[in-house]
Amino acid sequence: MQRMMITLLLAFAIGAAMGRLLLPVLRRLKFGQNVYELAPESHQKKQGTPTMGGLVFAVAGIAAALLMNDYTVPLSQNMLLAVIVMALGNMLIGFADDMTKIRSGKNGGLTPKQKMFFQAILALAFSLYCYFHPQVGSVIEIPFLRAQLDLGILYIPLMMFVIVGTTNSANLLDGLDGLLTSVSIVDFAALAVLAGAAALPELGVCSAAMCGACMGFLLYNVYPAKMFMGDTGSMFIGGAVVAAAMLMRQPLILVLIAFWMLMSSLSVMIQVTYYRKTGGKRIFKMSPIHHHFELCGMSEVRIVAMYMMTTVALCVVTLLGVL
Amino acid sequence: MQRMMITLLLAFAIGAAMGRLLLPVLRRLKFGQNVYELAPESHQKKQGTPTMGGLVFAVAGIAAALLMNDYTVPLSQNMLLAVIVMALGNMLIGFADDMTKIRSGKNGGLTPKQKMFFQAILALAFSLYCYFHPQVGSVIEIPFLRAQLDLGILYIPLMMFVIVGTTNSANLLDGLDGLLTSVSIVDFAALAVLAGAAALPELGVCSAAMCGACMGFLLYNVYPAKMFMGDTGSMFIGGAVVAAAMLMRQPLILVLIAFWMLMSSLSVMIQVTYYRKTGGKRIFKMSPIHHHFELCGMSEVRIVAMYMMTTVALCVVTLLGVL
Repeated sequence: MQRMMITLLLAFAIGAAMGRLLLPVLRRLKFGQNVYELAPESHQKKQGTPTMGGLVFAVAGIAAALLMNDYTVPLSQNMLLAVIVMALGNMLIGFADDMTKIRSGKNGGLTPKQKMFFQAILALAFSLYCYFHPQVGSVIEIPFLRAQLDLGILYIPLMMFVIVGTTNSANLLDGLDGLLTSVSIVDFAALAVLAGAAALPELGVCSAAMCGACMGFLLYNVYPAKMFMGDTGSMFIGGAVVAAAMLMRQPLILVLIAFWMLMSSLSVMIQVTYYRKTGGKRIFKMSPIHHHFELCGMSEVRIVAMYMMTTVALCVVTLLGVL
Repeated sequence: MQRMMITLLLAFAIGAAMGRLLLPVLRRLKFGQNVYELAPESHQKKQGTPTMGGLVFAVAGIAAALLMNDYTVPLSQNMLLAVIVMALGNMLIGFADDMTKIRSGKNGGLTPKQKMFFQAILALAFSLYCYFHPQVGSVIEIPFLRAQLDLGILYIPLMMFVIVGTTNSANLLDGLDGLLTSVSIVDFAALAVLAGAAALPELGVCSAAMCGACMGFLLYNVYPAKMFMGDTGSMFIGGAVVAAAMLMRQPLILVLIAFWMLMSSLSVMIQVTYYRKTGGKRIFKMSPIHHHFELCGMSEVRIVAMYMMTTVALCVVTLLGVL
């Protein structure tokens, strides 16, 4: 517990300092994101805000986690390292996406096929890692029922789906200043508490590091954002969240703690499906659903507060179902 | 622990619902606050935003706490009730202040003498209550040193000072949209954890209720605020925070968890003293210090994020020093 708390403080301090150091660098490199042409009009003023700020919390989180890691745990079974590798892997995919956008000057990125291919490879590798990890395996916990379910070999394809779904959903949720960052702070805090309670100290330290790092980054990412996290950042977060949940055999809690990530994906799917079926009608004014709320007249900051506070509530529900 | 979590969820739900119900009522009653003439110019647009929104979290917090209270604990020793009475007492002083402001149409309120008189009476009563409470007494804990200090009869005047200082400081901190609310959410969460760890379940439930209630209120109070909490709200929060800290014999942690409240007061004192000594020079561009940050070019929302995140960090430091 103490180690987790010190890690959080350390990551917060490094994150806050990193933001200050990196902001002028990102500005100088002109890593400004071209705002998605389909976003609400009010977002056009955000043109030129530096992106790839996700490097701030990636570096801060990883540095704090590695500093506080327990290196007596065999490296191949060290959950802290597993989360970091998974987060970094996804970050690289996001990074490639960001670079493509910056270079081409259009908000396009990797082709969907390329992205999906790399994601599938990574998801397969991590699912296999968990499957063969002595403390994980093919069993998942069922919250509230306090039961276990052995998925057998089905664990691999199901978890691949969960991984790709979560990381892409995190990516979609990153659409308003400070939105994904605020939600992630809460998620990582909940994951840290759960890992602590499950006697998985490495996972607890890692989650606490990510929580603190996002706290530091929020100072720069909050409305009006001085930097965006970019796909670099959102894929990193998505990877870390899904990895931590899987390693504690709790992928099902993602429905609660990653509720708004899920809603972002679902709203896009519903919107697209409905649009095609009806030949041009829309259910939401815009998807992902945070843009719908925006066009309904809610301010960006109010949506962030709503997402963050409901995520706190959902995380408390999760704790009730798991502890 | 479970009771605390359910209480938090309940208070959040009631708070969110209460806000929706109370907003049109406050608007109809024209409880618009006349914005303090000395606030930065950008605040003039806030003229007319309904005040006394503090009733939202007061009602939500008290309702959730009373519903989850353990009535087998003797009423006179029930810490949950003690916190509520103390918070309500301070709220009444704030309420009187708000009413005076609304009626006179000027941002003046009770005369400082009247306010101080009622506050002193309340502080005396609560200090005496703690002094004679079998689980409190004149002993206070010293965090980090893990020592105790028996203040003897000095407990009474010292705690009176702490109480009046904290409530007035909370009042001063309430100067930006969502600022005191965000900080209080974190403070009450920390107090709930501390109370739980100290095996003071009533206090834990009460703190969790206040945390959830503030979460619900934040949805309306966040920038751009649909309602202000008013002195009604800030005095309620100040009273609840100081009461909870005192009942767990931890008044010293207020230096950490109520850091920004303290800084608000200190910055005003330093500013006024310096101004008088130098015959008109200022240290801060404006006090309380959040207005200084504002005039330095930080946006309102960024200041709130900074205060909230540093408060999280300070609360983690507190947990390190106490648990």
